Amino acid sequence: MSVFRDTIKVTTEGLCSIHDITSDVTRIVAASKLTQGICCVAVVGSTAAISTVEYEPGLIEDIPRLMEKLIPSGISYQHDKTWHDGNGFAHLRSFLIKTSLCIPFDNGILDLGTWQQIILVDFDNRERMRELVVQLVGE
Amino acid sequence: MSVFRDTIKVTTEGLCSIHDITSDVTRIVAASKLTQGICCVAVVGSTAAISTVEYEPGLIEDIPRLMEKLIPSGISYQHDKTWHDGNGFAHLRSFLIKTSLCIPFDNGILDLGTWQQIILVDFDNRERMRELVVQLVGE
Amino acid sequence: MSVFRDTIKVTTEGLCSIHDITSDVTRIVAASKLTQGICCVAVVGSTAAISTVEYEPGLIEDIPRLMEKLIPSGISYQHDKTWHDGNGFAHLRSFLIKTSLCIPFDNGILDLGTWQQIILVDFDNRERMRELVVQLVGE
Repeated sequence: MSVFRDTIKVTTEGLCSIHDITSDVTRIVAASKLTQGICCVAVVGSTAAISTVEYEPGLIEDIPRLMEKLIPSGISYQHDKTWHDGNGFAHLRSFLIKTSLCIPFDNGILDLGTWQQIILVDFDNRERMRELVVQLVGE
Repeated sequence: MSVFRDTIKVTTEGLCSIHDITSDVTRIVAASKLTQGICCVAVVGSTAAISTVEYEPGLIEDIPRLMEKLIPSGISYQHDKTWHDGNGFAHLRSFLIKTSLCIPFDNGILDLGTWQQIILVDFDNRERMRELVVQLVGE
Repeated sequence: MSVFRDTIKVTTEGLCSIHDITSDVTRIVAASKLTQGICCVAVVGSTAAISTVEYEPGLIEDIPRLMEKLIPSGISYQHDKTWHDGNGFAHLRSFLIKTSLCIPFDNGILDLGTWQQIILVDFDNRERMRELVVQLVGE
């Protein structure tokens, strides 16, 4: 049993930009030489999230619309009165979708469906350089 | 330390059908002979989700109503323009609720409350045979 | 490789009270003597949740408002017809935000952003004594 760790850097546009990180995570699982275990993908920060989706152009439009409906960007939040940085909606979206996800792997392959990709969603209201941690525990 | 893995097959009705998988996961934890660690439950696919709830008839009605309110099934999504399979809402619900969940265990027993069950929710718009992975890392 | 486990007790007010548990979790990671692995934080029960947020007064007001908008407390749920305890909204909120979260750690330090705290949110409609499990797997 051992732990393997690597990081991924992603330059984002923010405002609900969606980034397919499946190939990066897959590459790290292969590099680990681990065959079986749990892979934890986490974005460091409080205005982004990790989830999975079928990464196709339709859903890449649908997700920002959904987030805009659930947690609109154009209204006032108490957070903005604290810092005046206008990204209260981004913090709330990150709280809702959450910043990490665990995926099992076996024979060195992540347990993902054919149409299921791992995505980073950046909710912040500006470009960001995001650091993601991919931490594997297994054998 | 070691890894233990098993799978569960669940035949679902879809359209937000909710399946109590607690006894299956409990059985796998017992079969692993591991006493302490982390249990990751994941559904392979992009139109279902894993969470916990008190599995009683009221909430089994409330959850589909909630999902219908947050992400309605009867409206048009861009996803449906890509594939014409009419399940855009199911993909978005899976993105929101997410496809995996980790639960600690100790003395071979999952850390769940008395009124807390592990559920598979199938959001797709048709019957499915779902494969779930239960991956344990511990000692 | 080994497993380390400890629990945290938190007395809550309920009704979406938000509790910063970062220092408790950090203390447990330090006590474990583990340097690298995955930390799973879970609340035992079906009316609370674990997530992360920038713990500042604005967002501590914004989160209850968000939950009230997504899953109102003042309407009738089928759950309340089963038990008549009036906390159907709390169960649904817990289903949505979910009761556990995994965070990687390295050099004995959790991979959290500077403005990112781990929170327990208690959605129940009364005071509770909550037990949280912090389970580490690593080396």
